[in-house]
Amino acid sequence: MVTFRDDKREKMIPQGVVSRLPVYFRYLSELAQTEDARVSSAQLGEALRITAAQIRSDLNFFGSFGQQGLGYRVDELLQAITEILGLDRNYHLVLVGAGNLGRAVASYQSFRLRGFTIKAIFDANPMLEGSYLSGRIIHSVERLPQYLKEHAVDIGIIATPHQASQEICDVLVAHHVKGIWNFSPTYLEAPESVVVEDMHLTDSLLRLSFRLQEQRDSKEE
Amino acid sequence: MVTFRDDKREKMIPQGVVSRLPVYFRYLSELAQTEDARVSSAQLGEALRITAAQIRSDLNFFGSFGQQGLGYRVDELLQAITEILGLDRNYHLVLVGAGNLGRAVASYQSFRLRGFTIKAIFDANPMLEGSYLSGRIIHSVERLPQYLKEHAVDIGIIATPHQASQEICDVLVAHHVKGIWNFSPTYLEAPESVVVEDMHLTDSLLRLSFRLQEQRDSKEE
Repeated sequence: MVTFRDDKREKMIPQGVVSRLPVYFRYLSELAQTEDARVSSAQLGEALRITAAQIRSDLNFFGSFGQQGLGYRVDELLQAITEILGLDRNYHLVLVGAGNLGRAVASYQSFRLRGFTIKAIFDANPMLEGSYLSGRIIHSVERLPQYLKEHAVDIGIIATPHQASQEICDVLVAHHVKGIWNFSPTYLEAPESVVVEDMHLTDSLLRLSFRLQEQRDSKEE
Repeated sequence: MVTFRDDKREKMIPQGVVSRLPVYFRYLSELAQTEDARVSSAQLGEALRITAAQIRSDLNFFGSFGQQGLGYRVDELLQAITEILGLDRNYHLVLVGAGNLGRAVASYQSFRLRGFTIKAIFDANPMLEGSYLSGRIIHSVERLPQYLKEHAVDIGIIATPHQASQEICDVLVAHHVKGIWNFSPTYLEAPESVVVEDMHLTDSLLRLSFRLQEQRDSKEE
């Protein structure tokens, strides 16, 4: 038996561990489709370019997996990480903002396979109202509060311009949406009980440019 | 004088510090447009919801800023962070993949203001060849190697499907592109001298779902 929901869960999980969980999940999903029933931390490490020690330490945060010398059972580990990531259930999503970024998100099919379904789309542009995006009709953003009253929405995706995003966030929070996936270039104010995950394109590009600058500096020295 | 390019630069900069630099940059850019000539670490901390001690420690990685009791000079600090982030120059970008995500990236105007210019767009779909995206013509991806031979490209944006991304990465690397901004759901293999910055939508969504699961668990206990 896997005992990953023991009291170790109450530890604060370091950001680094959290950021590697999707990597484990993806790789184990691929492995599960092969004939390999077991995987060692050394194999995992080589495939994911993480040290075996790091992998054992990461997985230890969630309980005791694997057996000395035998490695991990792929199905058991995958099932455990699926539950840890909260992927053993379905999520009701709404998308606010049907511009380029919203369109990209709406058309990303792989989410749906993992149980994340965008059930309604809203936009402030009256020209878009009534048109379709990835098979769903676009509603006026004015209908968002009513929709949230009538449906238990898990995650709100904010893909609006900067000026609108805090207001949309407030509407979502007021209607008990607990997860916000933020694509707008804004740091949103939300209560602690609400999880905000930011996808900031500009920040990502600035990290890239920082690391390029670092490389140039190290060559000059 | 600001001395940020001293030997402290040679320290390995922790990921956490790097991820906060764009936040500092954005906030200081806004401050620079006000009349405030100085800012204290306490003010910065309050605005960015980071402790003042954390801010002083972050900025110390890059040298000695500020004066005890007087805070930081906004213009000086902004100039220093601009240089640290490598934003005191222009970047020549190419975009490979003109699907939804590529379109979203191409139409994101704020990059260009910071010196990042997408100068050419490539796609494998012959139907797209010759059409325009954000004012630039879309070329066949077969023309990518020739383009790279003729132009000094700093950053390649990969917004192709999973199957194509490693091949595109190899072409970019072979032609001395030093920065790769990867939007495909793939971990790319590249030499250490090449900087790869990943924007994985699915990973971000999985982090969100993990943190929602954590919230549910903590309520159940």
